[in-house]
Amino acid sequence: MRVNGKPFRTIWLSPDPLIVQIIDQRHLPHEFIVEDLVTVDDFARAIKEMHVRGAGLIGATAGYAMYAATLAAPEDGSQSYLDQAAKTLLATRPTAKNLAWAIDRQQRAIAHETSLAAKRARALAVASEIADEDAEFCRRIGEHGLSIIQQISEAKGGRPVNVLTHCNAGWLAFVDYGSATAPIYAAQRAGIPVHVWVDETRPWLQGSRLTAWELGQEGVPHTLIPDNTGGHLMQHGMVDLVIVGTDRTTRTGDVANKIGTYLKALAAHDNQVPFYVALPSSTFDWQIRDGVREIPIEERSDTEIKFVSGQAKSGNIETVLIAPESTSGANYGFDVTPARLITGLITERGITPAHEADILALYPENR
Amino acid sequence: MRVNGKPFRTIWLSPDPLIVQIIDQRHLPHEFIVEDLVTVDDFARAIKEMHVRGAGLIGATAGYAMYAATLAAPEDGSQSYLDQAAKTLLATRPTAKNLAWAIDRQQRAIAHETSLAAKRARALAVASEIADEDAEFCRRIGEHGLSIIQQISEAKGGRPVNVLTHCNAGWLAFVDYGSATAPIYAAQRAGIPVHVWVDETRPWLQGSRLTAWELGQEGVPHTLIPDNTGGHLMQHGMVDLVIVGTDRTTRTGDVANKIGTYLKALAAHDNQVPFYVALPSSTFDWQIRDGVREIPIEERSDTEIKFVSGQAKSGNIETVLIAPESTSGANYGFDVTPARLITGLITERGITPAHEADILALYPENR
Repeated sequence: MRVNGKPFRTIWLSPDPLIVQIIDQRHLPHEFIVEDLVTVDDFARAIKEMHVRGAGLIGATAGYAMYAATLAAPEDGSQSYLDQAAKTLLATRPTAKNLAWAIDRQQRAIAHETSLAAKRARALAVASEIADEDAEFCRRIGEHGLSIIQQISEAKGGRPVNVLTHCNAGWLAFVDYGSATAPIYAAQRAGIPVHVWVDETRPWLQGSRLTAWELGQEGVPHTLIPDNTGGHLMQHGMVDLVIVGTDRTTRTGDVANKIGTYLKALAAHDNQVPFYVALPSSTFDWQIRDGVREIPIEERSDTEIKFVSGQAKSGNIETVLIAPESTSGANYGFDVTPARLITGLITERGITPAHEADILALYPENR
Repeated sequence: MRVNGKPFRTIWLSPDPLIVQIIDQRHLPHEFIVEDLVTVDDFARAIKEMHVRGAGLIGATAGYAMYAATLAAPEDGSQSYLDQAAKTLLATRPTAKNLAWAIDRQQRAIAHETSLAAKRARALAVASEIADEDAEFCRRIGEHGLSIIQQISEAKGGRPVNVLTHCNAGWLAFVDYGSATAPIYAAQRAGIPVHVWVDETRPWLQGSRLTAWELGQEGVPHTLIPDNTGGHLMQHGMVDLVIVGTDRTTRTGDVANKIGTYLKALAAHDNQVPFYVALPSSTFDWQIRDGVREIPIEERSDTEIKFVSGQAKSGNIETVLIAPESTSGANYGFDVTPARLITGLITERGITPAHEADILALYPENR
């Protein structure tokens, strides 16, 4: 998608094939900084400290990280080096399913090659494949989701369709297009008037920092709201549908997504507002059935709650304390929305109810 | 309650009876600043710009503001001066019921006096009465609410009772004790172990700035959480009850409170967690029955969403921009929680279901 009118992806191989480049998202919306990643530690830090974040992009970054691991692996003992790299990467973000999925895909592919040179070539090919596939799947999610927006638009006689989204499941969370935003961008391109309510998404503020920024860059009308606001808007008929992303989805349709998603799902349910989750199939965890009990929920430092960074009047980025210094906070990264609150899942293969039988009808290979 | 071990109220007459003093809450938790209020404009600004806020304290401040109006009123035409003052004050915060209630109580009292001197004396007496009554009603709310916490504590075999609260309905929102916090302080004093989950309460951060601070000053164990977190905690049995305040409550038990309260009520309902609203009867609006349709919801500037103030490393208070400069926000101050989601109302006269007949059984004078 566009940054100052120029098309970008969130991750790409630099002209020097030893270097992978990303947008360091910690600096948005104030600064657009491209970062070079070379070592496995560079990649692990970029994932853990959220230079990159979001389901698809974590997967794509892990894919390139395994390629970087093959570059650094010694001729002797390359397998144990790669295993260690996989372990380091896996430990960075416990909730994200795409992380394990991408690492596993790389490891199985690399295992087929015998020489280290062949492993390197194969790992690069697979990393590119993961990234291209992520972009292509998100494009298709956009096509499928477009039909939902189109229908609402017709029912409203062409008045703008108000979509609420939480966190950033935009192109910045994937390689391109995004999951939750893909139908919005598709609608915009199809000339259907849309307006997006952007949850600011505390504590990390993915909504105000990233979603508002990328919608602005694409010219999509949007309004920033505190996370507390969605219920009120829904009570007053100001939201036509909710679309969010997910970091891990059970085979039964329970959805782990950014903390606070469950609250929006409850409000949507209470006000008969359709609540959709958009995801490429790499986000499914086919092994588990009960999201609330089985999905591990990442806990992060309370400094993300007690301190906020932003642009001071001087133009410099400053970090300010917004709570008593002695107060402690609890920072759970995700919550789980039970399938019963979800109208449908928008996948690259189409839209399905959040029920095991329907999901498996779309993905019969996981029966 | 205590500030650095010394008892304080939130508003008081200074030794000079022409000056009323308040804690300027905009500077908490970083600085404890006492502000002098003299003119009606001082009072109106203090309410509108949230030097003081919270149901009871807005009422008490309006009470003293009307006293200040009698001091400034000319001998000739004092009535029209007082009417104009009332109008100015009423316009400051549209949702808060206690504002209209206190102004009305003062105007009716002052009207009985003929000389301006008598009006002044009467207005001061009524202002003190409103403040004392607010403190006393909150103390009683604490006594009634204590029984709920006691019961849960017994059922848990004395393990800490986890209370979740949203916004600040603490002593800083009233004259003393608070509404939602009064049962917590009463439990603490009775030796019942309690722990409070404090919603940070975006955008103004009443939770992190005020509730965390006052609980800390009183030595009550607490943990600060983003507003997004409560649903996850309730799904995992980590919340025993929710207690919040209210800015206006219909005769049928619908409750307007800080934006986001409705989302917590939905989560409590979905997880069978008791959800209580604590209020002195001055917060009831006996004229209306349908909260969602009839309670006016204040909209504030989006600068409260786009900018955050806090203490920089230098120790200075800095304001930082946390969203794209060109993005607009919507800042609704309150939402309405329908009575059907409320377990009970804790009033100065006792606990009642949020149903018209039960409420009126407790307040028969409003039948």
